[in-house]
Amino acid sequence: MRVIGIDPGLRRTGWGIVDVHGTRLSHVGNGVCESSGADLALRLLSLYRALAAVIAAHAPERAAVEQTFVNKDAAGTLKLGQARGIALLAPAEAGLPVAEYAPNAVKKVVVGVGHADKRQVEHMVRLQLPQAQIAGPDAADALAIALCHAHHLQFAGKLDAALAKAGA
Amino acid sequence: MRVIGIDPGLRRTGWGIVDVHGTRLSHVGNGVCESSGADLALRLLSLYRALAAVIAAHAPERAAVEQTFVNKDAAGTLKLGQARGIALLAPAEAGLPVAEYAPNAVKKVVVGVGHADKRQVEHMVRLQLPQAQIAGPDAADALAIALCHAHHLQFAGKLDAALAKAGA
Repeated sequence: MRVIGIDPGLRRTGWGIVDVHGTRLSHVGNGVCESSGADLALRLLSLYRALAAVIAAHAPERAAVEQTFVNKDAAGTLKLGQARGIALLAPAEAGLPVAEYAPNAVKKVVVGVGHADKRQVEHMVRLQLPQAQIAGPDAADALAIALCHAHHLQFAGKLDAALAKAGA
Repeated sequence: MRVIGIDPGLRRTGWGIVDVHGTRLSHVGNGVCESSGADLALRLLSLYRALAAVIAAHAPERAAVEQTFVNKDAAGTLKLGQARGIALLAPAEAGLPVAEYAPNAVKKVVVGVGHADKRQVEHMVRLQLPQAQIAGPDAADALAIALCHAHHLQFAGKLDAALAKAGA
């Protein structure tokens, strides 16, 4: 199972992809989509096309997007919302089921505590995916989201197996 | 010139289309796209596809989207932002230039004052487009946005003509 994690932002949207083979996890790729364009609609379009290209290139089967709304002001929250709309649409348009995780849930799964800082998250991502060359903090956050969803899917898989065994 | 106005909302997104022929305006269509789906990504996808279908069916050449961020709380603002992201993306993806207008600017152009209420806006839309059967308040708002952009384009056209004449 291949999982893409997305950390949305209007200026920079991080993405990270991992493969889940039973209990093993491996790194597939990570990066940052930067939006460009003279106005907001063109920036959102460039973000959408960049994300769609990443999804087409790596063919993930599941997606997870960070569920943030920690922002100072209404204008900032609205901007983030617009980028999040694109980050949710791109995988849905490609037919992927899209999960959402609150930042604290991601930290709790990846680091073990819900209040970890960015450096701790990046450190644990590097430990779990030692082969990854990480393209900056937004890509590290996106890999953390992918890892969180991968662990969730592994757990769900184990649960299904145990239930099938119990039923047999 | 055919203009689509869009009033974005996660639950209901209004749209309204008008034609501009010199100084004359005529109604083309209006309606509401309602989002449906089990989760947020699917709801945004249904909204995106419904808007893309409206644009494909009526082939507008310009788009205008309301620039709202009057919302009570951060969660509401984020939701609106997500719908706005889709409302800006759909026309941009179809190659249309997308303008944005603040609600007060729309009211000022359509009603004459920036603090008009919804009934006044709908009344002026009906006066200017007597042939339109309006599909509710969200569609009326979208037609008001389309009218605002149409007036703006008419004015820009007159200015160009005057400048060309002065230059000749």
